[in-house]
Amino acid sequence: MSRTPPHPDVSQIDLQSVLEAVVDPVRRSIVTQLDAAGHDIKCGDFDLPVSKSTATHHFTVLREAGLIRQYYVGVARLNALRRADLDRALPGLLDAITG
Amino acid sequence: MSRTPPHPDVSQIDLQSVLEAVVDPVRRSIVTQLDAAGHDIKCGDFDLPVSKSTATHHFTVLREAGLIRQYYVGVARLNALRRADLDRALPGLLDAITG
Repeated sequence: MSRTPPHPDVSQIDLQSVLEAVVDPVRRSIVTQLDAAGHDIKCGDFDLPVSKSTATHHFTVLREAGLIRQYYVGVARLNALRRADLDRALPGLLDAITG
Repeated sequence: MSRTPPHPDVSQIDLQSVLEAVVDPVRRSIVTQLDAAGHDIKCGDFDLPVSKSTATHHFTVLREAGLIRQYYVGVARLNALRRADLDRALPGLLDAITG
């Protein structure tokens, strides 16, 4: 059994789902922190004003909308910003949100 | 008494309010129709799948977020896309949404 959760293909990334994901300030903060860091970040290493279980929900929404890619390294779940995919699916949107 | 409803100044346009406005598909359709038309449009002349009163609410949300400017010509309320203000406040966002 794969431990990598499902992700939409770049062709499945749509504006409505992405807007629904980033309209939430906490989720937008996750995206902004990934963009600013320039590298992948463990779930527990984000600076977020919510509980761990709430944060997990937010990561899931971002993953299902195609904004982040999640994968495991040992027991740690890491998060990568899907910048190239987003720039291809929705040109300019990520820059407008993180700018 | 002025018949022009209140509008935020360009300096008051913020990402959160704009995202909350455009996350709604009907409101995004209003913005897209204004962008495609290239001219101001009367409230009654949009192609929208909602009642007149619901549409009025959507126009108000868009106006209060700074996406559209509303003004009267006689008894008709017209809507203008605030493209220049939006491009200044949130560069690239409008293009990403209407693209």
